[in-house]
Amino acid sequence: MDLFFQAALLLDFYGDLLTDRQKLAYGMYYNEDFSLREIAENLSITRQGARDLIKRAGVVMDGYEIKLKLVERYERHARMADEIINILESVSANEDVENQNKINDAITKIRQLNEV
Amino acid sequence: MDLFFQAALLLDFYGDLLTDRQKLAYGMYYNEDFSLREIAENLSITRQGARDLIKRAGVVMDGYEIKLKLVERYERHARMADEIINILESVSANEDVENQNKINDAITKIRQLNEV
Repeated sequence: MDLFFQAALLLDFYGDLLTDRQKLAYGMYYNEDFSLREIAENLSITRQGARDLIKRAGVVMDGYEIKLKLVERYERHARMADEIINILESVSANEDVENQNKINDAITKIRQLNEV
Repeated sequence: MDLFFQAALLLDFYGDLLTDRQKLAYGMYYNEDFSLREIAENLSITRQGARDLIKRAGVVMDGYEIKLKLVERYERHARMADEIINILESVSANEDVENQNKINDAITKIRQLNEV
């Protein structure tokens, strides 16, 4: 998985277990593409301090992921939801509009189920 | 939600964040219907010690649930999965066996998606 997508998922799932500053620095770095220098300026700390915050945030979240596996579970569910949607999209509704609407409705809900 | 079902979900989601003894005592009490006296005997502690372990485990897991909301999310997803299954079960397959098999396959997978 893409490093930035993985980081975004970690932050979505575990961000509330970080300190405010860890969460902020990690999000700036991975989600908003700030440089370490920019993060340091924003938080009034050194560049090394910014690096430490981000690194520590990653260690904390990796520790929770080892135990809770929320990112792993999310990815497994996303694959399963894709499979289900593929199956339903292959159902030919034989020009029965009501059935087609129901299947489309189910697909929409499965997509929602799969949101973080 | 039923207290014991809630406790089982908390333990499923957050059990690995407890100490081994907290996890054991909580599971014995809520999942296996042991009495405090039986738990105390099993763990070679006092009845009050068993009560404290279980209570502490609950406090720790409630703290994580406030931040991570995994039980809440699970229940929301379970309701959505039920809705999707109801919709798909109402699709009339017009005696098309291939379509009906696909829809049944999708329903089976949605049930799997909904397992803890």
